[in-house]
Amino acid sequence: MKALLVDSGKLALRDVPKPSPAEGEALISVRLAGICATDLEILRGYGGYQGIIGHEFVGTIVGGGAETGRRVVGEINCVCGRCDMCQSGLSNHCRRRTVLGIKDRPGAFAEFVTLPRRNCIDVPASVSDEEAVFAEPLAAAIQVLRQVKIEPRTSVAVLGTGRLGLLVAQVLARTGCKLTAIGRNPATLAFLDRRRIANLNAADVQQFGAFDVVVDCTGSPAGLPIALRLVRPRGTVILKTTCAGGGSADLSDLVVNEVTLIGSRCGSIHDALNLLARKEVDVTGLISRELPLDKGVEALALAASEGVIKVLLRAGA
Amino acid sequence: MKALLVDSGKLALRDVPKPSPAEGEALISVRLAGICATDLEILRGYGGYQGIIGHEFVGTIVGGGAETGRRVVGEINCVCGRCDMCQSGLSNHCRRRTVLGIKDRPGAFAEFVTLPRRNCIDVPASVSDEEAVFAEPLAAAIQVLRQVKIEPRTSVAVLGTGRLGLLVAQVLARTGCKLTAIGRNPATLAFLDRRRIANLNAADVQQFGAFDVVVDCTGSPAGLPIALRLVRPRGTVILKTTCAGGGSADLSDLVVNEVTLIGSRCGSIHDALNLLARKEVDVTGLISRELPLDKGVEALALAASEGVIKVLLRAGA
Repeated sequence: MKALLVDSGKLALRDVPKPSPAEGEALISVRLAGICATDLEILRGYGGYQGIIGHEFVGTIVGGGAETGRRVVGEINCVCGRCDMCQSGLSNHCRRRTVLGIKDRPGAFAEFVTLPRRNCIDVPASVSDEEAVFAEPLAAAIQVLRQVKIEPRTSVAVLGTGRLGLLVAQVLARTGCKLTAIGRNPATLAFLDRRRIANLNAADVQQFGAFDVVVDCTGSPAGLPIALRLVRPRGTVILKTTCAGGGSADLSDLVVNEVTLIGSRCGSIHDALNLLARKEVDVTGLISRELPLDKGVEALALAASEGVIKVLLRAGA
Repeated sequence: MKALLVDSGKLALRDVPKPSPAEGEALISVRLAGICATDLEILRGYGGYQGIIGHEFVGTIVGGGAETGRRVVGEINCVCGRCDMCQSGLSNHCRRRTVLGIKDRPGAFAEFVTLPRRNCIDVPASVSDEEAVFAEPLAAAIQVLRQVKIEPRTSVAVLGTGRLGLLVAQVLARTGCKLTAIGRNPATLAFLDRRRIANLNAADVQQFGAFDVVVDCTGSPAGLPIALRLVRPRGTVILKTTCAGGGSADLSDLVVNEVTLIGSRCGSIHDALNLLARKEVDVTGLISRELPLDKGVEALALAASEGVIKVLLRAGA
């Protein structure tokens, strides 16, 4: 089968053997996959991952078993169920986990992928492939609401209006909080205008020390220092950014202002599918381009370029 | 009067005019003052403060008014009472605050100091000067308990067994939590043994990813990366360290492990005096040396040297 691999820091389309599902796993024919900032960071060396990348996908279970034909998305953390984290209900933090296309498990930028059956989640018929492929990043956006209390009176800044920032902003807007999305790309700010979400060009921001909560979705090491300037004393910064080479910041102000900084990763795929089924979040409006898997190298370069939001890969095209 | 000043990065003992209390302020004759890591960091440029340093003290109100003779310690944050922080009960984060010996207000390494009367807190007769001078750093240690829930089943590491670490360790030990203090100085580890507080030499630590809560009291930029390795996924790191030049760390692991990092600064002086009055914390055992204010330059050099814990300055000696 065709697959998009990272090998010694280089991205290449290769012909590789079709994977064989292990005991308890399903073989999935990938329909559509999405390119995420983490894929681009892996290409720059983040996490030291080598192999097939890709963790946002929608596909169909194949192989002839009872589940054949189910249209599914995937919970990307594959866990042991026995370690202290799994036993305490924090299985996303399983000590022995593999993570689809990120850690010790071949990813979804391929014609076929395998996942434990319990990680395969049915997509409601009312959710299109183009919507379902956003389930994983939308779940990551929803996770913010599980980590910090956001009420109508809470003032929140979403910093960065890229792929993830536009999802986070839409999810937070549903709480009725005092929301401001801050970005640099006029096209994404126009998208927010259409969704009636207050937004500011980053160059015009003056509300330093003012926000109860700031969510850093910049995907850049430059984000956190700005987030720490925007948050009020005793406020909360949610950090979504993971970068190759690491984000870092002078944290003296965090101490003096007693700021709480919370790292945030994956969320509930079920919650994301529910939100997609209710059409409460516009995801298809974020699609900049769809390319066939064959053009995966070109697609990742496109996804890394200024002003491009979501690039999708159509497998088997 | 004699005072210890930082001027263009140099420390000097100088003769300066005795301060005149402003409206609402008390004039205090300093009895005893304590040298803190923040004083040493200011000398290295932290916060850009120039002037008389020192913020840990016990003194006597003088000047002939009704309050003359009261033996007091000081709440070091002098606040406006009117800004959004003050109005919302976060007056320690007052937008217009001055801070004794740290920000826009001459400090206590002097024969006399002024403070708003409402910042002067009476010392119970049962608390000696040598104990009372620890009220401010002990309050900073107690603050940890207001910021994170610590129960008997909570596993906690206190990283750094210097001035602040030994106070934090003693305060946390009172909760009955599963506590390990981690340090490098054999004398401080022996102090912890005498207090029956479990401790480890930093070189022997192996419990990575294991602690529910880690409190970084190292006072060094090297502390946070270690704290982030010690804490479990979804655990909490309390950051007490402020350094000239700033602490920084690769925060990708904080995101992936969804760690909560909380900055922590000042606490309740009243709570600290209560604890001192009940003799539940050994502070005098931390005193390495007492020197007269005249020898302040020497005293700060001593406080900065390996293995020295608390150095006190006796004013008027």
